[in-house]
Amino acid sequence: MGEVKGGWMTTRELENQTKTTEEARLEYILRLADNALVLGHRLSEWCSNGPVLEQDIAIINTALDQVGLARNYYKLAAEIEGGERDEDYYAYRRDVFEFKNILMLERPNGHWGDTIARQFLYDTFHFFLLEELIKCNDQDIAAIAAKAIKEVAYHAQYSAEWIIRLGDGTEESHNKIQDSLNTIWEWTGEMFETNEVDDLMRAAGIAPDMDEIKTLWHDKVAQVLEIATLEKPEDGWMQTGGKMGVHTQYLGFILAEMQYYPKTYPNAKW
Amino acid sequence: MGEVKGGWMTTRELENQTKTTEEARLEYILRLADNALVLGHRLSEWCSNGPVLEQDIAIINTALDQVGLARNYYKLAAEIEGGERDEDYYAYRRDVFEFKNILMLERPNGHWGDTIARQFLYDTFHFFLLEELIKCNDQDIAAIAAKAIKEVAYHAQYSAEWIIRLGDGTEESHNKIQDSLNTIWEWTGEMFETNEVDDLMRAAGIAPDMDEIKTLWHDKVAQVLEIATLEKPEDGWMQTGGKMGVHTQYLGFILAEMQYYPKTYPNAKW
Repeated sequence: MGEVKGGWMTTRELENQTKTTEEARLEYILRLADNALVLGHRLSEWCSNGPVLEQDIAIINTALDQVGLARNYYKLAAEIEGGERDEDYYAYRRDVFEFKNILMLERPNGHWGDTIARQFLYDTFHFFLLEELIKCNDQDIAAIAAKAIKEVAYHAQYSAEWIIRLGDGTEESHNKIQDSLNTIWEWTGEMFETNEVDDLMRAAGIAPDMDEIKTLWHDKVAQVLEIATLEKPEDGWMQTGGKMGVHTQYLGFILAEMQYYPKTYPNAKW
Repeated sequence: MGEVKGGWMTTRELENQTKTTEEARLEYILRLADNALVLGHRLSEWCSNGPVLEQDIAIINTALDQVGLARNYYKLAAEIEGGERDEDYYAYRRDVFEFKNILMLERPNGHWGDTIARQFLYDTFHFFLLEELIKCNDQDIAAIAAKAIKEVAYHAQYSAEWIIRLGDGTEESHNKIQDSLNTIWEWTGEMFETNEVDDLMRAAGIAPDMDEIKTLWHDKVAQVLEIATLEKPEDGWMQTGGKMGVHTQYLGFILAEMQYYPKTYPNAKW
């Protein structure tokens, strides 16, 4: 059988793994990449299904930015690993438990408001994270982040504007986007969750202080929701698992679809 | 790249291919197998989603019968091909255009009435087809058919009873199952469609006269629908393509899901 390393370990066993700084760096980069790839794939499902053509194109541009970002991180991961694997390996050959994206991003798109709620909460987080990563000690990560932050600043602006449009819109749009926010909220905690990988990366001057990111995020989200006349949900019990490779049922279906062609024609060349 | 033989041919080119009797026999068997596998996979999606536990179990038993039937046909195909490929190859390695199942069976399940409508129309056809195949000149096919007909007789009885229960039930169930029948009807023509493969198999004393099967099917369907107080839809324009490997968008998603694990761990052994 192929690699199932870590596949049948319990959550507790996974948590107790001890990593070197280099291993943590690779995992940190792959986590950034997986977040971008999985979100990019989900957003790509809006292609031809947007509420109006302009928004269809806008959200697909965001999807493309995310896939491009994933590619940059995967290329870096391949370099670090020494060139035995290429960028496509990480996207198309790994199984579910090897993906380290947060669970929020693998959830189905739902209706437009659901997608916008997820997007706004993630873009805002992503922007503050990138603001730190562009100053970090790892020049490769900093360079990728510097390119991405221009795009993500636009994504965050776009999704915040939609939150305001829907929240401060009709009674129906207001109620629907409020429901979307209430539903997605329990999936937001994982963005700020830290484990051994974050600790090692923080010590190496790469990962930022996630408590600071969390404060910035809460403030910004509160500010936008107030303009949008929406209630900010209370933090309560939060979903967890993605950063340890423990995923919802949805990731398997995403990978099945995403990996179909590379796996059907494993030696295909363009 | 892997085999794409026939993949980029037009429908017209595909129709004009000339086959030997042995090639036609292999394709005929694979077509029977693909019908069983694709229907079995679709029905398996009802697992844990049935309207009540008893029917959940019943429909999953039907799914298992279909997958078992597919396996028997695939084993026979592997023998005919000389043993280079095994039964798993046909199910897990072929791409969309190599599947020859009829399109009706790859359509999404819809609600319970939609599934029952498809099942009743297909089971009835399948039963009459097997009644002929058990007497055919190919002893291997006849043996598989003889085992399957006992199961399919039960499937046909089961789905006909559900048609009567829903049709002669409440106003809502009556209207819903009538809609299901009206919608699925344009996909039924393909069951009776013949091409070069059928002609060669008919000449070899293997395939039955499809016009006779069609007459038997129409009579039986009319009889059950009358008891169910339902209208038999008129034959009109009919969907086509599956027997030539030209499929709906749905088959790709079925294969992506079905083939995920064998393709992720290509050398896995149980």
